[in-house]
Amino acid sequence: MKLGTIERGGGTAVVVHVSDEEVTLLPDEYADIDGLLKKDEVEWRSAATAARESGERMPTVDVSWLPPVRHPGKIVCIALNNSANPDRIMSGPDTPAAFIKPASSLVGHRKPIIVKDKYGRVHPEPELAVVIGTGGADIPVDEALDHVFGYTIINDLTSPTMRDNDTFHYRAIHPDPENPDGVRYVESWVSYPARYKGSDTFGPLGPWVATADSIPDPHDLRITCTHDGRLVTDDNTANLRFSVAEVISFTSEYFTLEQGDVIAMGTALRKSAAGGAVQNVNLTNLGGTVEVAIEGIGVLSNPVEHR
Amino acid sequence: MKLGTIERGGGTAVVVHVSDEEVTLLPDEYADIDGLLKKDEVEWRSAATAARESGERMPTVDVSWLPPVRHPGKIVCIALNNSANPDRIMSGPDTPAAFIKPASSLVGHRKPIIVKDKYGRVHPEPELAVVIGTGGADIPVDEALDHVFGYTIINDLTSPTMRDNDTFHYRAIHPDPENPDGVRYVESWVSYPARYKGSDTFGPLGPWVATADSIPDPHDLRITCTHDGRLVTDDNTANLRFSVAEVISFTSEYFTLEQGDVIAMGTALRKSAAGGAVQNVNLTNLGGTVEVAIEGIGVLSNPVEHR
Repeated sequence: MKLGTIERGGGTAVVVHVSDEEVTLLPDEYADIDGLLKKDEVEWRSAATAARESGERMPTVDVSWLPPVRHPGKIVCIALNNSANPDRIMSGPDTPAAFIKPASSLVGHRKPIIVKDKYGRVHPEPELAVVIGTGGADIPVDEALDHVFGYTIINDLTSPTMRDNDTFHYRAIHPDPENPDGVRYVESWVSYPARYKGSDTFGPLGPWVATADSIPDPHDLRITCTHDGRLVTDDNTANLRFSVAEVISFTSEYFTLEQGDVIAMGTALRKSAAGGAVQNVNLTNLGGTVEVAIEGIGVLSNPVEHR
Repeated sequence: MKLGTIERGGGTAVVVHVSDEEVTLLPDEYADIDGLLKKDEVEWRSAATAARESGERMPTVDVSWLPPVRHPGKIVCIALNNSANPDRIMSGPDTPAAFIKPASSLVGHRKPIIVKDKYGRVHPEPELAVVIGTGGADIPVDEALDHVFGYTIINDLTSPTMRDNDTFHYRAIHPDPENPDGVRYVESWVSYPARYKGSDTFGPLGPWVATADSIPDPHDLRITCTHDGRLVTDDNTANLRFSVAEVISFTSEYFTLEQGDVIAMGTALRKSAAGGAVQNVNLTNLGGTVEVAIEGIGVLSNPVEHR
């Protein structure tokens, strides 16, 4: 089953996928997927089945999409998690490395990605995203998938220009091993992702959450990224280095996962046969429309708007 | 006026500071400061005045504190924003650099900071925090302080061990200037802060939010950090490099600030006359209790628990 959250009559509503051309509405008590997650599963599944059989239908093209989860407590984004370019990495990661993207960066399907000259380069990053249904800490790998509500698509927009601006060469303060009150400086690099990963509209999400039961293997899904109809990335979630279960288990050892949290699994990188790479798609200069498609989930399409 | 959020009878409540020994309760309709922010200011101020005059009082020591804002949409943390050690920084920042800390890392006053052997070194970082009352984007510097609801204290716990583990030397993919579809590799460093800044309990916050009208100058406040009664940091918010107004204005050009968002202004670094630095206070080995105090706001105290 595939569910989405839409704007409707000044409020919001949950829609159920009927076909790629039509959706049907859940009753008013389900205003968004954040809220649906708190309700009884047997009840919302039965409401969804009833809606698909006899509910009001709307053409998909008339829908104003919101991020399916509107206010996730956190969006955990895994970095450097693709095996397509192993020669790139000169050190690590040995375990999943992550940053947090703010919920304020999320936008729905077909909503504009806003770019500004001061952002410098901005490129798309096509990713599988996991929506947590049941929270937890210290989740074992073999139980991890039981915590998944479903799978969606995120375009993890990135500005390498802002990344460069917010990367610093500095002397980190370390304790002096020879003096308990002393410190020594250790030359280090550090980078801070809030701007380059978290600016407004840098997180298109959706349109659908495919419930976990409808995705038998999250590591066997073709994932593509298209710019103005030209195929840029053509990858498969089989190439994720750390699996969904490994990432859920590892991250939950550090931070409690909560219902509605979103985990972005890391960029699909394998270039299409036609050449090019997402890093060549500088949306600040090129504008256009970016589409990320994942087999069994859907197509997330967003036009670029230059301000 | 100083307000806090506490656990009470299976639910939560907002308390008003009467003295350092006593608090009084706001009516039940105010369950936390997140909720209070959405209500009419004249009404909650009048309720607070009435409670201070004739409300039930509780000894502060009996209170079970929560983070004053329980579910901020985002926690924006400014890095490298102290003028105490300018020789440390070999490049930048020319503008406020930031990362996002997840709300799941927040804990209240007197709640334990949990450390684990696998975290490696963990040290405290005493910081002034701003609670946004009125959201906005592209906020001009001279209007920025109008968006502040109040000021609180955050202990921005940091694991330099996890920072090292999540810092990578890699070849970033850049466009090839001589070939529109080509890429070249540029040797770079990148670091990802989710674990080292965002693990559970790495964000003690509170106990009080001092409303903006009660803090005439947020850049004239003594800020100290004490470990087991020993003064480690003795600084003043005058030493913040980018001011509260500058940080609000700059960050709001990139991400919309929302009501209840928290901005951590960066670590106070000036060592006390007795020597030592927060980086010497490795809580994983030392345990003990950490106190961060800011003049006019209060004292945030948390015991360390080793698991």
